[in-house]
Formats: sequence, C-alpha cells, structure tokens
Amino acid sequence: VSAPGVIWGVGLGPGDPELMSVRAWRLVSQARRVAYFRKRGHPGQARRIVEGLLAPEATEIPLEYPVTTEIPVEDDAYGDALRAFYAESVERLLAAAGEGDVVVLCEGDPFFYGSFMHLHERLAGRAAVRVVPGITGMSACWTATGAPFCWGDDVTIVLMGTLPEATLAARMRAGDAVAVMKLGRNLPKVRRALAEAGLADRAWYVERGSAADQRVMRLADKTDDAAPYFSIVLVHGRGRRP
Amino acid sequence: VSAPGVIWGVGLGPGDPELMSVRAWRLVSQARRVAYFRKRGHPGQARRIVEGLLAPEATEIPLEYPVTTEIPVEDDAYGDALRAFYAESVERLLAAAGEGDVVVLCEGDPFFYGSFMHLHERLAGRAAVRVVPGITGMSACWTATGAPFCWGDDVTIVLMGTLPEATLAARMRAGDAVAVMKLGRNLPKVRRALAEAGLADRAWYVERGSAADQRVMRLADKTDDAAPYFSIVLVHGRGRRP
Repeated sequence: VSAPGVIWGVGLGPGDPELMSVRAWRLVSQARRVAYFRKRGHPGQARRIVEGLLAPEATEIPLEYPVTTEIPVEDDAYGDALRAFYAESVERLLAAAGEGDVVVLCEGDPFFYGSFMHLHERLAGRAAVRVVPGITGMSACWTATGAPFCWGDDVTIVLMGTLPEATLAARMRAGDAVAVMKLGRNLPKVRRALAEAGLADRAWYVERGSAADQRVMRLADKTDDAAPYFSIVLVHGRGRRP
Repeated sequence: VSAPGVIWGVGLGPGDPELMSVRAWRLVSQARRVAYFRKRGHPGQARRIVEGLLAPEATEIPLEYPVTTEIPVEDDAYGDALRAFYAESVERLLAAAGEGDVVVLCEGDPFFYGSFMHLHERLAGRAAVRVVPGITGMSACWTATGAPFCWGDDVTIVLMGTLPEATLAARMRAGDAVAVMKLGRNLPKVRRALAEAGLADRAWYVERGSAADQRVMRLADKTDDAAPYFSIVLVHGRGRRP
C-alpha cells in the first residue's frame, strides 16, 4: 500500500440527499478531496446528490467517462477506452490519496452494479480502500410503488435489461419478485420478455425513485418506450403472508 | 383514513446506527411514539439499533411476537397466532396514531422481506402510512466481504434458506450472484444445495454484517452449522469488467 490516505467508496443512496446514511453524510461533508464519475459536459448524478453539502475548501476530482453509449459495449474499442479511463482514474485517486483521505461519490450501493467496483479492483494493494454501503435505487423504486416487494419465501431476481430477450424471459420465470434495471433502449425487449413470462399485467415502471420528480406507474399504462438510465421495471412477489 | 397521525415504517439499515439514513435518524430522534417488533423477553434488534437515540419523552410500543420458531411455519396454529398478533398490533398503532405520528422501527429495508409489510397491508385505508427505505442487511454483508457483489450483466438472485433443497439448487443455477438469507437451522441444507449447484467453493458466510461483532469467512472454513437469524450466504458474481 503506497498512499497514506484512505480511498472511500461512499454509497449515496438513490438520489434524495436525506436517504444518504449518516456515515455518508459525515464523510462527504468533511471530505477535503471528493471524486466522482460523470459524463463529459454533465454535472453527474452522484455530484448532484451532494449539492450544497461539500466543504468550500474541498478539492473536486471529476472522472469523466470517455464513452457511454456512443460505442456498443461489445465493441473492443469500448473496453479499451474504459480500461484506459479506469487506469488513469486510479492514478488520479492515488495522487490525491498522497495528500490524505479521498471520498469517491457512488450512487446507490457501491458493490451493487456500481462503477466504483472497477476502481476498487485496480486499487487493491495500492491504497487502503473502505466502502460504505448505501440504499439501492431499486429499494427507493419499490418503496415508491407503495407496495411491499418480496414476502416470505419469495425468490427475488434482479436482471439487466441488456440481456437477450430469451434469457430475460427464462430468468423472470425463476423469480417471484423481479426487478429489471438498465432499461434505456431495452424497454421494448423487456416488455416482450415480461409478456412471454406472463408478467406483463403485474409490472410497474418507476423512474428516479425518491427524487422530487419521480414517476411511478403500471408499465401497461406507459404509452411510450422512453426510459432513462435511472428507471426500473418491478414485479412484486406474492409470497406467504399470514 | 381514521387516524390523524401518520404511521411511518422506517428502515434502520443493517445494524450499525451510522448506516441509518439521515431521514430515519431525524424521524426516530424526533418521534414521540415509537413501535417495534421483538421476541418476548428480548430487547429486539430494531430497538437495539436506536439505543440512545430516542427522545426521553418518547412512548415506546413494543409489539411482542407470540411465537417465532416454537411452532412450524406450516402449522395452522402458527398462522392463526400471527394473524391475531398482527391484528392486535394494528389496533395499538391506530390508537397511538390518534395522538399523532408513530414511527415503526424496521431492520433493513421495510419492503424487502420485512415484518412491517404485514402491518402495512392491514393499515391500508385506516391510516396514512409512509415508508422510508433502508440499507439492507444483505448490502452490509457483501460490503463486509470486501469484494463487489455483482457486475455488468450478472443476474442476482436472493433465496430464502427455508426453501426445499432441490428448489435452492435449481434457483442458484439461475443466478450469477447469489444471496441466501434465513439460514438458521437450514445451513446444512443450503450447503448441500450449493454443492449441487457447483458453488460450494465460492460461497462466503457473513454474520451480523456492519455490527461491531460481524463475522466474515469462506463458508468452507466454517466448521460448525450454527447460523443466527442475521447471517447470510453469498456467492459473488463474476460478470463483465473492462
């Protein structure tokens, strides 16, 4: 371990700043060095959650994705660009950690499909890294539906909308409560998979759960197929309830 | 809606009080009426998390389970006892809500396999109910392993150790990242299912994730089969990582 500072991966929760943990709030508000991912030219969702909370003297370290959806994820160039980006990001974090602790802002929970994991892996052995879990976006979304998500012996399954349609349908059948993340342009395919699995009528659509502008509706009532990154499809379990 | 007060189901997170959300902390510390489940003769895990945080003038409303593991869950008497208990608990909450807001303390996330759901269902139309999501015990446990839980397109599946062995093994195969909750006396069965699914070597065992006395080990290194309620088995996903 070469850097004297600890690199903290801090889960910020689903978007509402009050859903940050007390520990996250303390670490973020006291941080002298704050890093976060963002898309070039955008403020970044993680940075937006902590707006007004950073100390005036904090140094900000934005880590700007070279690509997001411009190159297909299957393309070699996508992987190459991301690998170079993560390697460079790690060097920037290590340089900052030379001065003291660094807080990396993470939406949701860092170890649950989080971008921080790509840094975590590369930091192993090079700095002390600590992770603070957070409330997932998924939890905020099922809370927004106003109905409990999974009961008793229900099997809960979490799927990415990026999977092939047949895989989605088959895995949906393996769950009692189903969450589908990473919708974006995959929503029409997710709708077809839900229909194949016999779940179309029970599905909910939630956008930006916990945010002031959250949207919650039956998927059947959603007449378009526009779905931002922070949206999810949920099918509630119906397990044992005395 | 008959009661003037709001009944809040407040997720407290996995056990470490600092992993409570800022909103939960605020609601709990300002509450005048605080309810929580517990086993008769025990302090109760939810109440323990908020120790030292309640206002001195707060009225406490302990809801004491008539049975936990004394009667098999399949037995009619179990369901009867629980139904009567939930019905009585709801009346106590409604009476308290007649005086003003009531905070119900919930471990983890209320809508994720939480006991509060049984009250929520029965309160519909009788009181205004609001729910604050929390960090799940599962998140704290995978964070405790020091390794990211699910990556890229990984399918995440959450199973209850109470399921039959063949179901467990089959559903484990449907996931890339696997969490098994409700271990207790089911741990030997869960071990056999993991072996059948070819996952025994990759499984971790975590007890009381985030608590001061948390235990984290490879399941293969756990030489006994004693597993408290707040323990979990985890198999990390190995999905795409550039």
